[in-house]
Amino acid sequence: MTARVIVNGALGKMGVLACTTLQQHPDFELVAQLSRGDDLRAAIADTRATIVLDLTRADSAYDNSLTIIESGAHPVIGTSGLLPEQIAHLGALCEQQKLGGIIAPNFSIGAVLMMRFAAQAARYLPDVEIIEAHHQQKFDAPSGTAMKTAELIGEARRSEREKTPEHELIAGARGGAHHGVPIHSLRLPGFVAKQDVIFGTLGETLTLSHNSIDRISFMPGVVLCCQKVSGLGGLYYGMEQLFD
Amino acid sequence: MTARVIVNGALGKMGVLACTTLQQHPDFELVAQLSRGDDLRAAIADTRATIVLDLTRADSAYDNSLTIIESGAHPVIGTSGLLPEQIAHLGALCEQQKLGGIIAPNFSIGAVLMMRFAAQAARYLPDVEIIEAHHQQKFDAPSGTAMKTAELIGEARRSEREKTPEHELIAGARGGAHHGVPIHSLRLPGFVAKQDVIFGTLGETLTLSHNSIDRISFMPGVVLCCQKVSGLGGLYYGMEQLFD
Amino acid sequence: MTARVIVNGALGKMGVLACTTLQQHPDFELVAQLSRGDDLRAAIADTRATIVLDLTRADSAYDNSLTIIESGAHPVIGTSGLLPEQIAHLGALCEQQKLGGIIAPNFSIGAVLMMRFAAQAARYLPDVEIIEAHHQQKFDAPSGTAMKTAELIGEARRSEREKTPEHELIAGARGGAHHGVPIHSLRLPGFVAKQDVIFGTLGETLTLSHNSIDRISFMPGVVLCCQKVSGLGGLYYGMEQLFD
Amino acid sequence: MTARVIVNGALGKMGVLACTTLQQHPDFELVAQLSRGDDLRAAIADTRATIVLDLTRADSAYDNSLTIIESGAHPVIGTSGLLPEQIAHLGALCEQQKLGGIIAPNFSIGAVLMMRFAAQAARYLPDVEIIEAHHQQKFDAPSGTAMKTAELIGEARRSEREKTPEHELIAGARGGAHHGVPIHSLRLPGFVAKQDVIFGTLGETLTLSHNSIDRISFMPGVVLCCQKVSGLGGLYYGMEQLFD
Repeated sequence: MTARVIVNGALGKMGVLACTTLQQHPDFELVAQLSRGDDLRAAIADTRATIVLDLTRADSAYDNSLTIIESGAHPVIGTSGLLPEQIAHLGALCEQQKLGGIIAPNFSIGAVLMMRFAAQAARYLPDVEIIEAHHQQKFDAPSGTAMKTAELIGEARRSEREKTPEHELIAGARGGAHHGVPIHSLRLPGFVAKQDVIFGTLGETLTLSHNSIDRISFMPGVVLCCQKVSGLGGLYYGMEQLFD
Repeated sequence: MTARVIVNGALGKMGVLACTTLQQHPDFELVAQLSRGDDLRAAIADTRATIVLDLTRADSAYDNSLTIIESGAHPVIGTSGLLPEQIAHLGALCEQQKLGGIIAPNFSIGAVLMMRFAAQAARYLPDVEIIEAHHQQKFDAPSGTAMKTAELIGEARRSEREKTPEHELIAGARGGAHHGVPIHSLRLPGFVAKQDVIFGTLGETLTLSHNSIDRISFMPGVVLCCQKVSGLGGLYYGMEQLFD
Repeated sequence: MTARVIVNGALGKMGVLACTTLQQHPDFELVAQLSRGDDLRAAIADTRATIVLDLTRADSAYDNSLTIIESGAHPVIGTSGLLPEQIAHLGALCEQQKLGGIIAPNFSIGAVLMMRFAAQAARYLPDVEIIEAHHQQKFDAPSGTAMKTAELIGEARRSEREKTPEHELIAGARGGAHHGVPIHSLRLPGFVAKQDVIFGTLGETLTLSHNSIDRISFMPGVVLCCQKVSGLGGLYYGMEQLFD
Repeated sequence: MTARVIVNGALGKMGVLACTTLQQHPDFELVAQLSRGDDLRAAIADTRATIVLDLTRADSAYDNSLTIIESGAHPVIGTSGLLPEQIAHLGALCEQQKLGGIIAPNFSIGAVLMMRFAAQAARYLPDVEIIEAHHQQKFDAPSGTAMKTAELIGEARRSEREKTPEHELIAGARGGAHHGVPIHSLRLPGFVAKQDVIFGTLGETLTLSHNSIDRISFMPGVVLCCQKVSGLGGLYYGMEQLFD
């Protein structure tokens, strides 16, 4: 039996790709493609959708999540901007209803594995720096993924990186530190989104390198979340929770 | 209190480094440096060593391990050549005596993490190839580490890699397959030992890259094993078992 | 004044991109988009085109080139399949007419620079291997670019690479040799076209790495060729000839 | 016939390696190994050396160069610290005597090729950033090689890199700019000296990557300079001048 899915935010770049992907997948029936101005609550009721994939921006994702949960559908929320207290409240609502849901700030399986491995490696190899490269249209530096990775490393490593004395002949050469991890951001044409996490120790280096060259890389993660969400007992934060 | 350690195979390249490392480390007292011709059993008795680090070749490592265990010392065996039945027998002996021991085919923490992550990633990203590069004096191709990595990947991935039709214009271009994983071996000056494990999926790649530029990279693993071995309840195979 | 350009093979993937690119570029007026079945000779006459960009396959590119030259237009031919004697004959025809033309097997500026640098480096660093990675739909291995690069290296280096004895535990592990250069071909999703040329010497390596993630990467080279072709005194083979 | 060579600064790390290398090379006879306190002028006279390889620090290299030239020997000076006016004066002295000499700030053939290729590529691909990684004992950032590379790129590219608007969430994330080229400096154990020069353009990247893992990498350049210096007609600045 196929699951009935609504895509909310269907006109964005991710939304268009997700609609095509779900339409072509045998596990799913795409019952509505909504965008700004559509009535999400009514659409869920009308279509009897069991899953809503929300790809709207952070500022509307919270209200959409409330609507989805109140309607008894499984939320799959693809945004990195929800606040901790919002996530906690949504989790409590799902728990009450024993309703499965997922908040996935990053649908790329490769990126999620990179972050997981970075946290694991940091326990044994505390000296580490991050290089991320994006296209020149990316305004902010560092990327959200780089900062999240630095936070995971900061939590995982047991000791502070021993700071050796150093001198910047040119300000900024040593990058920007976040949770004690230097981050170096490149902005060049020819990249979509790439990140290297480089661990160094006596006589050897270990590098985790993720290179995304097309937004299509998010689709396997979208499919995975939509396949697993109805079997969950509550709200999961991070797609990596689904990895067994 | 420091642990009393014997290094067996002290004249080899690894042995020389290990002796220097243990001598300088506050946790250890190096009580003997043995090489071919020395009497290992007598040395353990004379020095009351509690740990023996055996860095001899595979053909003598098994007999040495028997001697060490019979003498009641903790064996730390650094060889990749022991047979499965030999390992099983040594394990049974340690179990009888409740004696901690470690067989570590690879003392590099970076290499061990690379193999562990490769196995984890293969569960989600089944399309993968391995590139390894070593100095030109390395006679065999592929390396033992590359073959071990391919085996771990083969066990971990749930489905066979879908074989797409392909045509080699030049024989060997597509590498040599081991457990269904293509391996490509480079032999060039300027490398000591490097390995890339490259996972590809829709629109993205994830690369695990380990680069060893100096034999000193094995020393942190040697120290870790010697620190942990006396606290173990039996014989461990693979240094990664010590990672918590 | 803008140059009047015809794109022949306008419905292929490259053709569609080239039409869009030339239409948006201030230096050019796109006067016809032709495909199989259209009359190229008549179109040149009717549109008074001064440049014809031919993106058809190798089997029709030679006849198209003859037509273009006979019509007095400047040919820009984007194919890697012309035979040496065909190229020689086209060159002679252009010379007679003092007509500028370009045959460009590869319009990527990055790839052309990579090949040029590989040939330069091989004079000083003769030990070299090539790794190329393409998507899984690429049937042949190695790629044409990898084989061309190996040929350029073979011509440039002064001495044969000293062959050290080696043993393949798995057939193909050491790759396929072309002009004495081992080539290793990966076929994985997540790649479009990538090539690494790795030079090794005492204690150091030099790697030239080209990564194409989108066919759009060919457009700057298309523009460059169309800008320069009318100023040339004859037929040039290889876009690198235009680099001053 | 072998050339008679003096190594000045023979007790430094480079000096020790250079002495061993020249002693083992059939083209050379090592006639003296000098260090601080030795009389260079007398040693040249006594040994009838024809070449002096000076590996002392920048503060004494100039005076040593004067002494070598006045003694009629060929200077091979391995320092990056000479001032432009000092180099000009030494050049004038060599010219008067028609005496061949070389000032080589970097004896690594791979590094010199990387810098040469970087300058060539910058003419066609103006968007570029530099990443350099060194061991943690390196105090200054960026490295001299990175800054020199940025200068060469700045001279070679015809247009300024178009600056896109960007925002540093963490100060230093975008690196330090030198001659308009962002430089990112990593300081991690497990590196000796590595540099990547990354050019990005529409849909593709070209990366020049040099990785030095051992000081021995400087020896082929030392040998090359000593082989060529007596055939030169004046003072050359930069080993790349010897590359034909």
